[in-house]
Amino acid sequence: QSTVTLSGTVDVGLEKRWSGDATRMTANRNGTSNWTLSGAEDLGGGLKAVFQVSTSFNSDTGTVSSTDGLGNNGMFVGLTGGFGTLRAGRPVNTLYGNVLLANGTKGVSGHDANTVLGGNATVNAKTSNASSSVYVPNAVQYHSPRFGGVQVQLEYAPSESTAAGAKAGKALGVRYDGGPLSLTFVNYTGATAAATTLKAVNQFAVSYDFSVVKVLFTIRDQGGLASDSDNSWALGLTAPVGPGLVYASFNNNEQVGDDGRTIIAGYKYNLSKRTQAYVNVARRNAAWIPATVTAAGGDGTKSSTGFGFGLQHNF
Amino acid sequence: QSTVTLSGTVDVGLEKRWSGDATRMTANRNGTSNWTLSGAEDLGGGLKAVFQVSTSFNSDTGTVSSTDGLGNNGMFVGLTGGFGTLRAGRPVNTLYGNVLLANGTKGVSGHDANTVLGGNATVNAKTSNASSSVYVPNAVQYHSPRFGGVQVQLEYAPSESTAAGAKAGKALGVRYDGGPLSLTFVNYTGATAAATTLKAVNQFAVSYDFSVVKVLFTIRDQGGLASDSDNSWALGLTAPVGPGLVYASFNNNEQVGDDGRTIIAGYKYNLSKRTQAYVNVARRNAAWIPATVTAAGGDGTKSSTGFGFGLQHNF
Amino acid sequence: QSTVTLSGTVDVGLEKRWSGDATRMTANRNGTSNWTLSGAEDLGGGLKAVFQVSTSFNSDTGTVSSTDGLGNNGMFVGLTGGFGTLRAGRPVNTLYGNVLLANGTKGVSGHDANTVLGGNATVNAKTSNASSSVYVPNAVQYHSPRFGGVQVQLEYAPSESTAAGAKAGKALGVRYDGGPLSLTFVNYTGATAAATTLKAVNQFAVSYDFSVVKVLFTIRDQGGLASDSDNSWALGLTAPVGPGLVYASFNNNEQVGDDGRTIIAGYKYNLSKRTQAYVNVARRNAAWIPATVTAAGGDGTKSSTGFGFGLQHNF
Repeated sequence: QSTVTLSGTVDVGLEKRWSGDATRMTANRNGTSNWTLSGAEDLGGGLKAVFQVSTSFNSDTGTVSSTDGLGNNGMFVGLTGGFGTLRAGRPVNTLYGNVLLANGTKGVSGHDANTVLGGNATVNAKTSNASSSVYVPNAVQYHSPRFGGVQVQLEYAPSESTAAGAKAGKALGVRYDGGPLSLTFVNYTGATAAATTLKAVNQFAVSYDFSVVKVLFTIRDQGGLASDSDNSWALGLTAPVGPGLVYASFNNNEQVGDDGRTIIAGYKYNLSKRTQAYVNVARRNAAWIPATVTAAGGDGTKSSTGFGFGLQHNF
Repeated sequence: QSTVTLSGTVDVGLEKRWSGDATRMTANRNGTSNWTLSGAEDLGGGLKAVFQVSTSFNSDTGTVSSTDGLGNNGMFVGLTGGFGTLRAGRPVNTLYGNVLLANGTKGVSGHDANTVLGGNATVNAKTSNASSSVYVPNAVQYHSPRFGGVQVQLEYAPSESTAAGAKAGKALGVRYDGGPLSLTFVNYTGATAAATTLKAVNQFAVSYDFSVVKVLFTIRDQGGLASDSDNSWALGLTAPVGPGLVYASFNNNEQVGDDGRTIIAGYKYNLSKRTQAYVNVARRNAAWIPATVTAAGGDGTKSSTGFGFGLQHNF
Repeated sequence: QSTVTLSGTVDVGLEKRWSGDATRMTANRNGTSNWTLSGAEDLGGGLKAVFQVSTSFNSDTGTVSSTDGLGNNGMFVGLTGGFGTLRAGRPVNTLYGNVLLANGTKGVSGHDANTVLGGNATVNAKTSNASSSVYVPNAVQYHSPRFGGVQVQLEYAPSESTAAGAKAGKALGVRYDGGPLSLTFVNYTGATAAATTLKAVNQFAVSYDFSVVKVLFTIRDQGGLASDSDNSWALGLTAPVGPGLVYASFNNNEQVGDDGRTIIAGYKYNLSKRTQAYVNVARRNAAWIPATVTAAGGDGTKSSTGFGFGLQHNF
């Protein structure tokens, strides 16, 4: 009645992030290289114990970060049954779990939609980094059963601190999936000690599958300094083409002065159900300069175009 | 004839360690979250090769320590046969493997019996940290076959140092298990370069299972500075109650002045053979202030009461 | 059609590296302790997706290095078919993959053939550490099919840097395997920014199996400072003796003044196909003083003799 499943992904590619940059080997620009233990045990009466321990790694160099070597990529133990599902550990961030993006955090490094959605650093400092991370440590999550396609999601992550201003991270998500339509809304609050002026992060997302093309839109209000400089949004589309999928998206991050904008696109070619070759292209305007790009010698005053390709295998 | 077994544990909970402390997500307060490769190969003639590579992790955050990422939780290769069992690597510390405690190193953080047994820092500095650690690196261990329920255990861990005063860690254990009774004795010596006045650590433990209740007692003489300030002991009981187990223990650590004392108790409820919900409570007197508690803002001048609960799944 | 294989090795021993040194527990002096995920998926038309994620660890202490915790020991995703095999990730270094040594990087610590082949530090600084490492990060490799026993191997590892003088690592290997004879040649170039005077590393190796004894020879010209101080070579033999294998080799590293020389030998006793007991002995002359030995208190002015023994189990 108890099973362990061993699965994972290896995704490696090459890319050039802008004109004049060195060619680089990249990890995880289509999927996320990981190895995962997971399983479920039937406890009787409709109740099941569930667990997952997933660990991601850098598939270009064969390394992990110095402390995140086990369970950084979705780790929890929980119970599931008629009442819904309860998980505790480091599960998927409720904000991240409900974005509807054409290509998630993927594509050319530094040009992807989630980098844009992550927002500007000044605002992030007031809402904790949980708003842009994929997984959230020290978290308890409850997902309700679906009633007419609607699911309620609750997240609570204690601050584990008695410092003044420290607050637990809390998220409320509502999600509808029905036929071609998905609608999601998440309200997130949380604070480090310094973030006493915190306002909520609100995120709304919608996708509609027209069969020949699926349109996806996510908007996030980071609730911080000024109403004209804390929103970010991404409009994307995916379309099945041959034995694969084309994706494209336009992503905008409001900032005082010129907004940061990126256009990303690519094609994922299915060699099989489990193996995919891919190509990514991207263009970003001068106003949107991720620190990683400038640090690596990029010219922050010009628009840049990047491209990459790679191979992903799921096991 | 050769098999690999993939198994492990995920244990996550919430706790409050004393009045006024922040709520915290905890890892491993009932079991130890880990993933484990193990197996045995029949070599013929009654001889078997055995191995284990077990790695524990922090199941609240999905992390491991920066260097202990593989094999920190019981790792060895060895041979077993009519002569007994020989293991080399990082096996279970002979001292720790023979304590008989109601709840091992578990329960509310900073209040558990093993924290108390670990003794005071001044004494530990003279006996190396091996006396309170669960696993011991660079160790060779021999466990004899059982004769009339009696087993002899030998441990040798080279100091790997030519510095003056450096000594190998050595342990001699004798253990009897027969019917309801278990008796264990361990003598351990070992030293860092600074510990030239080392005396032995002696540990005696006994448990008796009266069916309705099992009584366990462990006493450890850390053999160091003064005869009135280097002993620690723990008296515990466990009792099957419903589909689970109640445990309780009183733990005492001699120190100059007032001794450190904790009372811990809890209930482990079996949802199945592999899944357990648990609750832990603990009270510790003012004299026993683990450094972790004070560092986290605890009031070191008062007794404190903590409690926690969680869910553990073994796969 | 897709499979995951879980395999690995645990190898632990004890050794004394020279007279007067402390006894040490050692990891990996016969094999390399690791755990490995690997597999292949049939994509149809003779094409297969292949992957491997192998991670080595210190089997004496149960640790890994702080950042190399996943995939440090041969990690790639690739495609294989009639055209050959293409891999990307951290595959086996082409130089290392074609050395023909009696005992590879193994034997008594600091006395083994590969330590000698690795050459002197001054030269290494000009050719990047890729010339002596077993695996090479950020690398793409192509291995041709075999035509009459001949295989061509290409390696490309981008420098990922726009700094002046930065060059990609490139290797061309040609290998012949036919009956008792193996012949390999590798040309490697690569540079860090400082290595503007780089010349190529050229390596030639040959082995011939006379059945009662196999002779192996590898010579490496590190192409750097001076023609009389940058070559290294190893001459070895292996011979099946009883249920095991004897090996011995003489290894020489040219340096200005006296060359560094080691003699290593040992016996690997097969307890089964998967389990091996081994003993290693080694002697090195005074001119060859690995920094690790001197740092550990070894007397750098004398020849030294070391020996060790251990147990290896493959699962």
